[in-house]
Amino acid sequence: MSTINIGLVGAGTVGGGVIRVLDKRLGYFKSELDLDLKLSRVVDKDLERFTRLPAGGAVCSSDVNDILNDESISVVVELVGGTGFARAFVLDALKRGKHVVTANKALIAQHGPEIFEAAAVNNVSLYFEASVGGGIPVIKSIRESLVGNDIFSVRTIINGTCNYILSRMTAQGLPFADVLKQAQEKGYAEADPALDIEGGDTGHKAAILASLVSGSYVSYGNFPVEGITHISKDDIEFAKELGYTIKLLGIIKKNNGGLDVRVHPAMLPAGHILASVSDVYNAVLLEGDAVGQILLYGRGAGELPTASAVVSDIIDVVRNITGNSPVRVPMDYYRSGKQINMIPVEKIESRYYLRFTVSDNPGVLASIANHLGSEGISIASVMQKEKSGGSGVPVIFITHNASEKGIQNALGKIEKEKYARAATQLIRIEE
Amino acid sequence: MSTINIGLVGAGTVGGGVIRVLDKRLGYFKSELDLDLKLSRVVDKDLERFTRLPAGGAVCSSDVNDILNDESISVVVELVGGTGFARAFVLDALKRGKHVVTANKALIAQHGPEIFEAAAVNNVSLYFEASVGGGIPVIKSIRESLVGNDIFSVRTIINGTCNYILSRMTAQGLPFADVLKQAQEKGYAEADPALDIEGGDTGHKAAILASLVSGSYVSYGNFPVEGITHISKDDIEFAKELGYTIKLLGIIKKNNGGLDVRVHPAMLPAGHILASVSDVYNAVLLEGDAVGQILLYGRGAGELPTASAVVSDIIDVVRNITGNSPVRVPMDYYRSGKQINMIPVEKIESRYYLRFTVSDNPGVLASIANHLGSEGISIASVMQKEKSGGSGVPVIFITHNASEKGIQNALGKIEKEKYARAATQLIRIEE
Repeated sequence: MSTINIGLVGAGTVGGGVIRVLDKRLGYFKSELDLDLKLSRVVDKDLERFTRLPAGGAVCSSDVNDILNDESISVVVELVGGTGFARAFVLDALKRGKHVVTANKALIAQHGPEIFEAAAVNNVSLYFEASVGGGIPVIKSIRESLVGNDIFSVRTIINGTCNYILSRMTAQGLPFADVLKQAQEKGYAEADPALDIEGGDTGHKAAILASLVSGSYVSYGNFPVEGITHISKDDIEFAKELGYTIKLLGIIKKNNGGLDVRVHPAMLPAGHILASVSDVYNAVLLEGDAVGQILLYGRGAGELPTASAVVSDIIDVVRNITGNSPVRVPMDYYRSGKQINMIPVEKIESRYYLRFTVSDNPGVLASIANHLGSEGISIASVMQKEKSGGSGVPVIFITHNASEKGIQNALGKIEKEKYARAATQLIRIEE
Repeated sequence: MSTINIGLVGAGTVGGGVIRVLDKRLGYFKSELDLDLKLSRVVDKDLERFTRLPAGGAVCSSDVNDILNDESISVVVELVGGTGFARAFVLDALKRGKHVVTANKALIAQHGPEIFEAAAVNNVSLYFEASVGGGIPVIKSIRESLVGNDIFSVRTIINGTCNYILSRMTAQGLPFADVLKQAQEKGYAEADPALDIEGGDTGHKAAILASLVSGSYVSYGNFPVEGITHISKDDIEFAKELGYTIKLLGIIKKNNGGLDVRVHPAMLPAGHILASVSDVYNAVLLEGDAVGQILLYGRGAGELPTASAVVSDIIDVVRNITGNSPVRVPMDYYRSGKQINMIPVEKIESRYYLRFTVSDNPGVLASIANHLGSEGISIASVMQKEKSGGSGVPVIFITHNASEKGIQNALGKIEKEKYARAATQLIRIEE
């Protein structure tokens, strides 16, 4: 068997991790698995990076064409990120008949059909395990281990930055801004944290998971995405008093032939298995018609956990090549054009946490309850708090199962009342 | 592509589940995955079973030779269990060049080398995902998703019966015998529960996991296996007071080039992720040098969860056949004869829960403390309880990290003292 040559682009955090893991494991792959692969080229704009990495005999350079033009390279690993350069590079590599391994969630979520079309046309594979859940084997589990199942529900904590922030707010009773600053100091949040805290990163990953379980391309931008910036210290505290924990969830549910996909903060009963997933840990809770509930838990980001997933993809591709089955697990639904009926959020039903900020006058509670009642919304519990500074007092309602549309109608009316002092905080409850 | 014919032996609980899942999913495999397979024969001694199962066009009979002699069948599924008939059947099928899928943990744990030798010699695959953790993707995750890692620790709750019993004892404060009876009534424990409650089932699964992560055959019988029958209501209660939960664990740890494998009840701090795995759920907590901690959680037994794993194996084999890579993920270490140094339990270090039953006399506590001290064992906490019936009072010591050998020496001396009223209860603590 001849050596399979690997080219890697992007020697930053994850790329550096992949180089380190390969350096440690190539001998094992050869001696124990009879797989002969070699990191033959690494490309990065910053040549300085190579001095700190155990790239072995790899030729290091700054021009991506060094990899694209090298016909001895059959597998390329894209770890640059983004959808500009990365998209062009991946398409070019596929067109040249090279297999691609990527950790790029934005690329798959936003350009999936184009990328998988190019892979299929050129009869090569595109693997992307590291794009969702870092080192947690999420994508392989869905595509292979659970292939006997109709997976009808996925609920996931899949952004370590948000989970760290919400966990610290819960544990320490601190406001969002303070904890964000802590997270930035510890390297758990970027200097520009928008993609994480506004839900975009979770949205990219939810789009990929939704595509995988529905068998049709679910585009990022095609479902509601809400971040955690509006979650207050008070919400965390009230949730705790009521026996709940607030987490940012990616939610995918099949419902009457439609697909309900959303990203938003949710309240989970404290005993819920996802409620115990803390700090930078990620978890994916899947429900299949045969298997029941499956939870996959681990580190969803970071140099070595993400590298672990990239390396498993590389080995899969190498096994495919040596086994003569280049496209072993096809992704045809990314190019089928098959449409799935996306359920708009107005059509969902849920239980709700509603925090009203109102003037402290007689009759206000009754008025809110009446507005909810006139939309057929039944109330499970009410909690009124002493004024805690600012204008207005907080009144919290927990509803029984209600339609989102009814809730929105009622909130519209309540916010027009003279006693309303601020916009209502709405957090959906997951059981 | 021609149809791939499957033969299934054993239409009991799991076999029935596989037949049901295939009945539901064969159309999907064909239309969405382009995999054309057919359940062509089912064999069971009890012909009555077929009347209740959607076996489609499969020929149902009671003679296993109907499958073995059918040259059109390239994949056989063994769901009979045990190591007598199943071993002979699997070996025969492999020798005839048929791929084998099995859920049989005893067969793999006790006859792994012979079975995998036969598979290798005949250039066919043997898949066994369902043998460990039912529907939880454990084996594929270790062999494929975590291939970039040295997995240095596996701790697992892998027997649903024991976990149900310990969970109910903890929640309800009931003694072992009462809960076992409940479990039998609910169908969570067999009429003869010995294989579960004495740890044998967990031992078979631990042997398989130990072989997978060490890359050398670890034979069942080659490491200590302890069940849960000696765990008393009092131990559960004292553990709770001290902030611990008792679980039956399979433990595999790499240590200085050796392998520490054991099955025994362990005390876990209440906040430990495995402590929250309750009732019939199973979980596998893996630690790899790149990925860090990974938890895989779900239903470890039952008709459909186990069938989910069997069907994923069938699809893997079918993909291998159509991809011309019959032995895609080899198991050569099962036949390499490579020896690994098994660390005897006397050589381990741990923290310990020790419950002494002693006469209520002055000086007893000091004498126990002295015996422990003379073996260099440092005490973390002590709890003495009022007499609760029976002879003697319970005195509980929690130690700091100590050598098992020192503990055994001290217990030997203490049990010879006149104040000792019963054997000491020893439970190791996992952090």
